[in-house]
Amino acid sequence: MPGPGPEDEDKVQLQAWDIGLATAQRSADLAQTLPAGITRAINMQVRGARRSTEAREPELSTGRMCSRPVPQEPLRRVAVTGGTHGDELSGVYLARHWLRAPGELQRPSFSALPVLANPVAAAACRRYVGRDLNRTFTSTFLTAGARPYDPYEVTRARELNQLLGPKASGRAFDFVLDLHNTTANMGTCLAADAAHNVFAMHLCRHLQLQNPDLSCPVLLYQLPGEESHSVHSVAKNGMVLELGPQPQGVLRADLFSRMRALVAAALDFIELFNQGTAFPAFEMDAYRAVGHVDFPRTEAGDLAGAVHPLLQVCALLGPPARGQGPPDTCVPDCSQDRDFRPLRPGAPVFQMFSGEDVLYEGESTVYPVFINEAAYYEKGIAFFQTEKISFSVPALPALAPAPGP
Amino acid sequence: MPGPGPEDEDKVQLQAWDIGLATAQRSADLAQTLPAGITRAINMQVRGARRSTEAREPELSTGRMCSRPVPQEPLRRVAVTGGTHGDELSGVYLARHWLRAPGELQRPSFSALPVLANPVAAAACRRYVGRDLNRTFTSTFLTAGARPYDPYEVTRARELNQLLGPKASGRAFDFVLDLHNTTANMGTCLAADAAHNVFAMHLCRHLQLQNPDLSCPVLLYQLPGEESHSVHSVAKNGMVLELGPQPQGVLRADLFSRMRALVAAALDFIELFNQGTAFPAFEMDAYRAVGHVDFPRTEAGDLAGAVHPLLQVCALLGPPARGQGPPDTCVPDCSQDRDFRPLRPGAPVFQMFSGEDVLYEGESTVYPVFINEAAYYEKGIAFFQTEKISFSVPALPALAPAPGP
Repeated sequence: MPGPGPEDEDKVQLQAWDIGLATAQRSADLAQTLPAGITRAINMQVRGARRSTEAREPELSTGRMCSRPVPQEPLRRVAVTGGTHGDELSGVYLARHWLRAPGELQRPSFSALPVLANPVAAAACRRYVGRDLNRTFTSTFLTAGARPYDPYEVTRARELNQLLGPKASGRAFDFVLDLHNTTANMGTCLAADAAHNVFAMHLCRHLQLQNPDLSCPVLLYQLPGEESHSVHSVAKNGMVLELGPQPQGVLRADLFSRMRALVAAALDFIELFNQGTAFPAFEMDAYRAVGHVDFPRTEAGDLAGAVHPLLQVCALLGPPARGQGPPDTCVPDCSQDRDFRPLRPGAPVFQMFSGEDVLYEGESTVYPVFINEAAYYEKGIAFFQTEKISFSVPALPALAPAPGP
Repeated sequence: MPGPGPEDEDKVQLQAWDIGLATAQRSADLAQTLPAGITRAINMQVRGARRSTEAREPELSTGRMCSRPVPQEPLRRVAVTGGTHGDELSGVYLARHWLRAPGELQRPSFSALPVLANPVAAAACRRYVGRDLNRTFTSTFLTAGARPYDPYEVTRARELNQLLGPKASGRAFDFVLDLHNTTANMGTCLAADAAHNVFAMHLCRHLQLQNPDLSCPVLLYQLPGEESHSVHSVAKNGMVLELGPQPQGVLRADLFSRMRALVAAALDFIELFNQGTAFPAFEMDAYRAVGHVDFPRTEAGDLAGAVHPLLQVCALLGPPARGQGPPDTCVPDCSQDRDFRPLRPGAPVFQMFSGEDVLYEGESTVYPVFINEAAYYEKGIAFFQTEKISFSVPALPALAPAPGP
């Protein structure tokens, strides 16, 4: 996962505020062995920028937003990066495959470059070996002089900045598509920095239209004031495919094929744009990150509870009991976690090991994502909160024909 | 996962034989971009002991099997081990919780000892830091003298052998219940070494009867001739709870609660036995390991394909397409992988990155388990093959009353 939110919180300007969460007697199977009627307040800190929905949405919907400039030339320098996290295997194995057989990435007007972004972590089948590569593309790391004991990923970030950047320079790649998996039930998530990235919004729209049988939610991950820190930020533009759920270190053929098809469709879109296709304006629904919530913890910092089953699991009904129904009976799907679904005030969010429930007592409905993502335990994140927004995306005009010879 | 099958194959007597697998044109979405009509044979080696179903099943069904002796005394020295693999979090967090609050493990006739088996790996949230602890309880490691550069887990195995063993001695613990998770769709799997472990079979039966709403398949994991190598093998008896699917490094509240309830029921069973309860004979169905199958690989040893969607996913039908059905439409569950389900000759088992299917061409139906388990990639195992067997388990007689004072 590319991961909204920085690893080194002290290096990034963040504002924090509190939302209220409360505990209540849990209703599950342990209730009978635990003290009844416990209700106490717990304050959970949500880190992130204060929401400014009111201020920003009118801007978006009236088209007065500060848009990232759309490309004025064909995109010829395009890269597809896999294995930015070495245990997210869809991208690892696609990158390895394309490095052997790059034909799939060729289009008439360009050939996308396959890159195994973190080969050392991929060889170890770990997210990273020194520090999270996808939090390392900041000016602090990219511009500092090399030191003998730099973590591997700092060195690798500088290499990738030379290969695909330099960041914020005219020599940078035109577009980087970065491939990620998550253990959370994010489905086929299309992640871009912000709504004002008009080219990325059109690409997301194209992928949605090309995949009518998939729900392809769009996640806008960048918090206001946050410095970009991910691999594709060294290019002029980019976005992320975030497919899940898939455990770390596991390659599922269905997600592998889906990601492969999405990359093909993304390259087709760039080819259409390069060939002079115009794309009309449209209305977009998306989920914008507003902060994140940590697990309940002991005084020593260890977990004191887990994500509540009612947040992680859509329905508690299991398969039919032995002998109580035909095995093929159609039952509600218990595996569908509630990423991108509304979390309303009063709903349970955590289940304490002691048996209590922790309830969400925010003022408004939010849409959690990355619920219980394995890689975020160490970052103190149980889930991200997003708000669902709708906005108008202006047309993407056709490129002007190239001047004649 | 405790894992049938040794890590160091050269140290264990194994027989290997070939089953035939074939490739055929795959029918999935890539078919149109790939050469059509490819059909070639691939031989996949299955490592394990040759099946001897015909010789063993009559033995079992007529009660002439060489049974492990049933306990003649109450079981007073009982341990529950979690975190034998540091990234299987149900057991890690249960062990940590019980170390702070051991009351749940107390019964009138005994108090079970909670043990965090691999605390260093648990702190790092990794399966192990030096070598797989659960493959280290062999005489080679336990009896050799300590050396300065022993992997941590070799040292830890000796410590646990002192705490819970020594292995094969009269001073060893009476019973060890070892807690594991798997990324595979194993559900609530009860794993014991072999059908002749009458006490463990009765415990499995008790857990099945206590959980009529769960399918609790019994896995018999030990291959004939294989030296026991897992943590509970240092005790006089033991078994494994293997709950999945759960990604490594993730704690799901539903599996945490289920494992907690299963441990409580297991201790209740031991208490009943200790108090003089007799348990009648019954018929048991179980899945007995017969070997394992590696992924298709390139000449360099890298993956050349993935577990086939039709082996990993029960049904390919997804949720209703956007706008093509109400969101709560009852659809077949796509997440139910085919662990413990029959794999018949001719069925696809792998999907090559090149687009071909690899078919199972064994002579008889097998029941794959641990399909696509993350921890087994490094061991060269895509799934285990088991055979489904039925056998009679003799009665577990009541303990003789303790002699009067």
